[in-house]
Amino acid sequence: MTDDRHDGLPDGHRHHPDRPRQGSFKRVTSLTNPLVKDIRNLQQKKFRDEKSLFIAEGQKLVRDAMDGDWPIETLVYGDELAGDEAIGQLAARAKTAGATVMEVSALVLEKIARRDNPQTVIGIFRQHFAPASSVGEGGLWVALDRVRDPGNLGTILRTADAAGVAGVALVGHCCDPFASETVRATMGSIFHVPMAKISEEAFLSHVRRRKLHLVGTHLSAKTMDYRAARYDAPTLLLMGNEQQGLTVDLADACDELVKIPMRGRADSLNLAVSTGLMIYEALRTTLR
Amino acid sequence: MTDDRHDGLPDGHRHHPDRPRQGSFKRVTSLTNPLVKDIRNLQQKKFRDEKSLFIAEGQKLVRDAMDGDWPIETLVYGDELAGDEAIGQLAARAKTAGATVMEVSALVLEKIARRDNPQTVIGIFRQHFAPASSVGEGGLWVALDRVRDPGNLGTILRTADAAGVAGVALVGHCCDPFASETVRATMGSIFHVPMAKISEEAFLSHVRRRKLHLVGTHLSAKTMDYRAARYDAPTLLLMGNEQQGLTVDLADACDELVKIPMRGRADSLNLAVSTGLMIYEALRTTLR
Repeated sequence: MTDDRHDGLPDGHRHHPDRPRQGSFKRVTSLTNPLVKDIRNLQQKKFRDEKSLFIAEGQKLVRDAMDGDWPIETLVYGDELAGDEAIGQLAARAKTAGATVMEVSALVLEKIARRDNPQTVIGIFRQHFAPASSVGEGGLWVALDRVRDPGNLGTILRTADAAGVAGVALVGHCCDPFASETVRATMGSIFHVPMAKISEEAFLSHVRRRKLHLVGTHLSAKTMDYRAARYDAPTLLLMGNEQQGLTVDLADACDELVKIPMRGRADSLNLAVSTGLMIYEALRTTLR
Repeated sequence: MTDDRHDGLPDGHRHHPDRPRQGSFKRVTSLTNPLVKDIRNLQQKKFRDEKSLFIAEGQKLVRDAMDGDWPIETLVYGDELAGDEAIGQLAARAKTAGATVMEVSALVLEKIARRDNPQTVIGIFRQHFAPASSVGEGGLWVALDRVRDPGNLGTILRTADAAGVAGVALVGHCCDPFASETVRATMGSIFHVPMAKISEEAFLSHVRRRKLHLVGTHLSAKTMDYRAARYDAPTLLLMGNEQQGLTVDLADACDELVKIPMRGRADSLNLAVSTGLMIYEALRTTLR
């Protein structure tokens, strides 16, 4: 029996260099426990960046992350679920992976959780990005220029996952993919699709060096219909910011500039919708 | 000079049966003015339904609605904008259309508005639906079975508008298209695309009677690829609820059941994305 519940040993005491560090178990009932504040702070980008951690809420999301081998730091559940079999298994997995397992009172859970649901489970995971050098490798990539809306980014990651896109590059100053709203909108796809962060400059030189085929969407009249473009591998779809579209330099770097035809009074499509159309068009001949 | 600013006449005093009723002007600085509460109440569905009114916020949205001849009841702006030329024109148009024009203090505006922007403008409009009998007329229609998410509904209306879809039918118990979040997500398209509300029963008998060609999306394995279906006019695309997909009766009523291929780990697409893909596929040969 190696369970260290209530044994009072400090975190990491059982750590052995040849084995993954075994996690620990904590009961937290005080709203003023500093761990509660640490977790709540992760709702702010500043603290997420500082700690390089993020929150996934809900059993499905937490399980998706662990199935995808995302490193879990802390697992939190309400004491109402103590004794629940699924939670017991999740907690055991988390501990084996070196996480702190926190069983908390209903009041503490309410303070930490976004959802008003005593059955919810919260996982704190370490952030992870694919290396910028991998952009364009292994199939179709989607590059997003300064995407701003968390819901759009989440939905795009979900679509990319569903269609089997090789990765999503976040070019320039994008919204945080690890914001709760984005993680939730991905429905777990954030744990499946490689994401890379890259500056516009680094992206431009990377594309040139690797001779990637860049297809960008643009609203100008001189562009061609998106269904007429070539999408031979290795292709990168480049989608502009919700308000401003592509920067001049990014548009200039494209091998093909395309547009999605419109004939109604709306003068643009939602970014997640247009990215979905582009992905399915690029994969039209291969996705069956 | 027919301006009735500060003339103290009760609303409708200048009404003449042969001319549209001229609106009135009010200055409101008290947070306890009952008009303030009336407007705030419209953020709740119960009151929107009761009054058959809704809120559009922002100059662009209000202008879109007036350009589309949506009947305006009240126009609200902050006194910071008094004297602004664009606002003056908007106010004149609203008054000619019979609306009450309300110039309010910054505090009152803050209490009414969703956005934290003293430059914002609020229009209260009368709700309007196309008759259920028009479903399927005049080109491609999209029918949504119990759509639940306001953002999805708004984005679908925007896509439908952009692609020139003839109308959107809300089948069964859908979320309210006149919720602020939906109106905002449409980016004004709610004022351009005919919407009809219809029960599932009425929808099924209408489709049978009019012999409409019904193409529904379904995740079952027996369905065909969405790119292989026929979309001859008069076609109706039928999209199921976010969680449950189509009801059994609706799926049974479809002439063709199709699915969008997926090969990633995500097991479904966001409803607004899949509806976008279906609309552009159905219009593939005609939308240039």
